Amino acid sequence: MSQRPTRILILGGGFGGVYTALTLEKLLKREIRRGDVELGLVSRENYMVFQPMLPEVISGSIGILDTITPIRRLCPNTNLYTRTVESIDLNHRSVSSTAGFGSRQHHLHYDHLVLALGNVTSFAGQPGLAEYALPFKYLGDALALRNRTIQTLEEADIEQDPEIRRALLTFVVAGGGFSGVEAVAELNDFVRAAAASFRNVDRREIRVVLVHAGRVILPELPASLGQFAQTILMKRGVEIRFETLLAGATADAALLQGGDRIATRTLVSTVPSGPNPLIAMLPLKMERGRVAVDPTLAVPDYPGVWAVGDCAAIRDAKTGELCPPTAQHATREAQCVARNIMATLRGEARRAFSFQALGKMGALGRRSAVAEIFGLKVSGFLAWWLWRTIYLAKLPGLDRKIRVATDWTLDLVLKPDIVQLKTERVPGVRREYFEPGQVIFREGDHGEWLYVVREGEVEVLKGDAAGQETPLRRLGPGECFGEIALVSDRPRSATVRAVSATNVLAVDREAFQALFATLPPLRGFFESLIETRR
Amino acid sequence: MSQRPTRILILGGGFGGVYTALTLEKLLKREIRRGDVELGLVSRENYMVFQPMLPEVISGSIGILDTITPIRRLCPNTNLYTRTVESIDLNHRSVSSTAGFGSRQHHLHYDHLVLALGNVTSFAGQPGLAEYALPFKYLGDALALRNRTIQTLEEADIEQDPEIRRALLTFVVAGGGFSGVEAVAELNDFVRAAAASFRNVDRREIRVVLVHAGRVILPELPASLGQFAQTILMKRGVEIRFETLLAGATADAALLQGGDRIATRTLVSTVPSGPNPLIAMLPLKMERGRVAVDPTLAVPDYPGVWAVGDCAAIRDAKTGELCPPTAQHATREAQCVARNIMATLRGEARRAFSFQALGKMGALGRRSAVAEIFGLKVSGFLAWWLWRTIYLAKLPGLDRKIRVATDWTLDLVLKPDIVQLKTERVPGVRREYFEPGQVIFREGDHGEWLYVVREGEVEVLKGDAAGQETPLRRLGPGECFGEIALVSDRPRSATVRAVSATNVLAVDREAFQALFATLPPLRGFFESLIETRR
Repeated sequence: MSQRPTRILILGGGFGGVYTALTLEKLLKREIRRGDVELGLVSRENYMVFQPMLPEVISGSIGILDTITPIRRLCPNTNLYTRTVESIDLNHRSVSSTAGFGSRQHHLHYDHLVLALGNVTSFAGQPGLAEYALPFKYLGDALALRNRTIQTLEEADIEQDPEIRRALLTFVVAGGGFSGVEAVAELNDFVRAAAASFRNVDRREIRVVLVHAGRVILPELPASLGQFAQTILMKRGVEIRFETLLAGATADAALLQGGDRIATRTLVSTVPSGPNPLIAMLPLKMERGRVAVDPTLAVPDYPGVWAVGDCAAIRDAKTGELCPPTAQHATREAQCVARNIMATLRGEARRAFSFQALGKMGALGRRSAVAEIFGLKVSGFLAWWLWRTIYLAKLPGLDRKIRVATDWTLDLVLKPDIVQLKTERVPGVRREYFEPGQVIFREGDHGEWLYVVREGEVEVLKGDAAGQETPLRRLGPGECFGEIALVSDRPRSATVRAVSATNVLAVDREAFQALFATLPPLRGFFESLIETRR
Repeated sequence: MSQRPTRILILGGGFGGVYTALTLEKLLKREIRRGDVELGLVSRENYMVFQPMLPEVISGSIGILDTITPIRRLCPNTNLYTRTVESIDLNHRSVSSTAGFGSRQHHLHYDHLVLALGNVTSFAGQPGLAEYALPFKYLGDALALRNRTIQTLEEADIEQDPEIRRALLTFVVAGGGFSGVEAVAELNDFVRAAAASFRNVDRREIRVVLVHAGRVILPELPASLGQFAQTILMKRGVEIRFETLLAGATADAALLQGGDRIATRTLVSTVPSGPNPLIAMLPLKMERGRVAVDPTLAVPDYPGVWAVGDCAAIRDAKTGELCPPTAQHATREAQCVARNIMATLRGEARRAFSFQALGKMGALGRRSAVAEIFGLKVSGFLAWWLWRTIYLAKLPGLDRKIRVATDWTLDLVLKPDIVQLKTERVPGVRREYFEPGQVIFREGDHGEWLYVVREGEVEVLKGDAAGQETPLRRLGPGECFGEIALVSDRPRSATVRAVSATNVLAVDREAFQALFATLPPLRGFFESLIETRR
C-alpha cells in the first residue's frame, strides 16, 4: 500500500491531450481515488481551444473567452502543470518544463508518457513571413488578427496618402483549406460590417484576398462543395487568386511566387505547419515529421510511451492510411490510447486504432457553410445550421455551451464590436525584413527604432533642396543606423534603403535608452559612432 | 462659403472628452452638417472605459469588452484620432500625436481646444512600485490583474515550498477609497470562488489584505457606511490594515511604512495619481497639478482653450469648492463646456459651472454595496440593486446595456472563468528593484535573464559542499552579471545578492541573443567578460 503510484503524464493541452486525460479519469476512477494512479498534464495554457470556433473570435460574434475551456474544469482529477515543456528524457523517464515565477525548472517523472504536442507554425525559408505574417492557430492569434484589422481601419480613417490607404484596407489570407477559408469568411464579414462605423472609410475601398495554391478551394471536400464555397465568398466580396503561392512578405506587402505583390498591412498565413521541435529532438522513428507508432498507438522500443494527435503518424488499422490531423481523429485516438494504457496496467490485450471520420464541415460566415456528412453533401443555410448545432454539442463544458448560445443569439441583434484591445507594450527588440530597393525610413520621418544589419546591405542617402538624393555610405552586417534620431529626438537625418534582401534587428526607443544608458561600453561605442557620422 | 471650418479639437477619451464631443454633436448638428464646424477627438484607445464596472472584469462577471464602448459609435460625427498626444503648442494652436503604422507624426490644428486628458498613475518616489505594483485604472490593468491572480493560483497548485506558496496565495490591495475597495471586494470574491477548481489549493490558505491609510475605509462616504463596508469585507475574509501606508515593493513582498512587509506576488495599488506630464509642460496656471480655469471652464489668457475632468481645477460657481475627480462631475463639466463653446461661436453669453453630486456608491462584491443618494444612506442588498440599476442606465450605448445585463444574468448561474489569457511575449528588457540583502538568483537556478546594475551594489557568492557561501566579488553601476547562464544554457554558477537598495536592468534570453549576436562590439565585450570570470 505504501507503493509509489503509477504516474501517467500527458504532454499537450489540445484535443489529443485533454481527451486522453478525460478518458483516463473515467476509466481509472477507482485507481485514482485509491491513489494507485496519478494523472498529470503539462500544457502551455490552462485552457483548451475549441479550434472550430476560433474564426468567430475575429468578429467577436463569440466572446473572447467562450471558445476556450479551462482544462481544470474538464479534468478535475488530473494535476495540471501550466508550463512549457523544455525537454523529454526517454531514458530516465522524466520531463522538464520551464520555471514559473521563481527560477527553478520543474522535473516530472513518469511511468507512462503520452505525447500529444501537436505541430507548430513554421515560416522557415520564406523571407519576411516570420516577421510580418499573422499565424492563425492559437487564441492569441485570433485576438491579434482582430486587433490588427481594427487598427488598420483606425489608421485608414485618418490617412491621407491614397497608396497607404489602399494597403491599409487590403486584407490577404494565404491558404484555401478549412482554416484559411473559415478565417477569410469571418474576416471579410467583420471588416465590411465594422467599416460602417468609420466616417472616412468607404466599404467599397475594402479588398479581401484569398491566395490559394490549387484550382478549387477546400481540397479536403468534394470539388462541388469547394465550388459552392467559392461562389459564396466571391459574392460577398472576397477575391480568390487560384494557383498562387505566397513567397514572402514585407511590412507593407504580400510577395507572391512569380514576382507579383499585393500591397497590404494585414497578411494571414494558415499554410505552413512544421514538426514540433521537441518531438524532432527525440531519438524516435519518424514519418513525415511525426512520431511513428504501432497500431495500438504505442511508440516502438520505448514501453510506456504513446503518441496521439497531430504529432503522431498513425495508420488506420483497417484502411492502412495515415490519419488526418483533425480534432475528430485526435479525440478518438485519445480514447483509444487511454483504453490501451488501462489495458497495459491491468495486463489485458490492447486494441488497434481505427476510425472512419463522420464528416467534414467548413463555415462560410453569416448563415452559410459546406459539409459532407456520412458521404452526403450539404451546403448553404442547412449546412450552417448543422455546423452550429454539431459544434455546439461538441463544445466541451455546459457553461461554454450556454455562453456560446447566448453569444450567437446576441450576435443576431447587435452590431459587431470594434474595440481595439491593446496589450501592454514591453520595451522591445524585433526582427524585420526588407526587399532590395525597399525604403527602411525617410529623411524627416519621426524616429522610433535603431536598426542593426544582420544580413544584407543598406544604403544611406541624403536629399538636397532639389529633391536629388546622394548616397552617403553603405552598411553591412553588424553595422547600425538610425541611432541619431533616438539619441536626439530630432527627425531622421537621412533616408536608408535596402540594397539587397536585408534582415535587420530593430531596437525601440525605450529598450535603447534602458540598455545604452546603463552599459558603459555600449555608451562609448554609440557616442563615438554618432561623433563620426555628424 | 469656401471658408475653412471651425475646428474643435478634444484631447482625451474619458468621460470628459467623450461627453464634450457627444454634446457638441447635438448642439452643433446643423453647423457640422453644413461643414462650418469640424469635431476632432484624440484618444489613446478607440474606446471609453466605463470605470465603475472595471472591477467586475477581474472576476469576469462582465465580459472583457462589455465595460467599454467604442467612441466611434458614441460620436459618429466626430473624427477620431486613435493616437497618443505628444505635445501641445498653445501659441501655434496645434497638437502633435504619435505615428501609427508609418513613421510620420500627426499634426492637428485647432480653433477651440478642450483639454480632457485626466491624470496618470504615478509611483514616483516609492522604490519597486513602478516595477511590481499593478495599477488599476485602465482596462488593460484589470485584465493584467485577472491574469496575475489566475497565474498565482496555477503556480500555487504545483508549488512545494510552503513559503513561496504562502506568498503566491496572498493578495494585497493598497488604498481604501472607492477604487481600492471595489477592487479588493471583486478580487476576494473571485480568488475564493476560483480556488475551488485548483486541486491542491485550500480556500483557507488564501489571504486578501486591504492596506488603508485612515481609520475607516471609504473616506468619501459618511463613516457609518465605511464601517458597514468594513464589516462586510471582513466577514468575507478580507483582512484590513488600518493606518498603514505602502512604502515600496519587491518582486515578492509589499513593503509597509515602518518596516513591516507582507510576502505576496500580487500587489495592487490604487493610491497614487499624478498630474498628466503633458499638462504639466504647458505654460498655464496650475492648482494642485491641475489646470486652473475660470468659472465658465475657459483657460485664462488662451482664448479658445478649455479644460474639463480630472486634469482641470474647477471651482463650483455656487459653493466655491474644488470639484472632485468623479465621472459624474466630468460628464456635467463636459456638457457645460460644450454649451459654452457653442455660446462663444454664436457670440452669446457663457454660463458658469455648478453641480451638486446626486450621490456616491461603492460596490462590495456579491449582492452588497453602500450608497449615499440625495443625502440618504443605503447599504446592503438595496444599495447593490441601486448600484446595478443606476450604472446599467448610465452605461453608454444600448448594445452594451444588453450585453452587461446578459452577463449579469449568466453570472448568477455559471462559475467564474479561470482562463488565463496570456499575451504575446516580446523579447524584452525590464527594470527590477531589490532590497538590501535580497537574493537576485541562487546558484543552480535556471537562468533566463542577464542583469545590469543601474544603482546600488550586489555581491556574488559561491557555495561549497558544506553549504558555506564565500563572497567572490562586488559589482556596481554599469557592471553586469548572469551572462554565463544565458550564453551556455547551464544553470546559474553563483548566487547574487543585493548589498544595498539596488535597481537593475534585466535583459531576457531572446533580447540578449538577438542583440549580442549581431553587434560585434558587444559580442567582444561579453566574450572577454565571460573569459575573465571563468
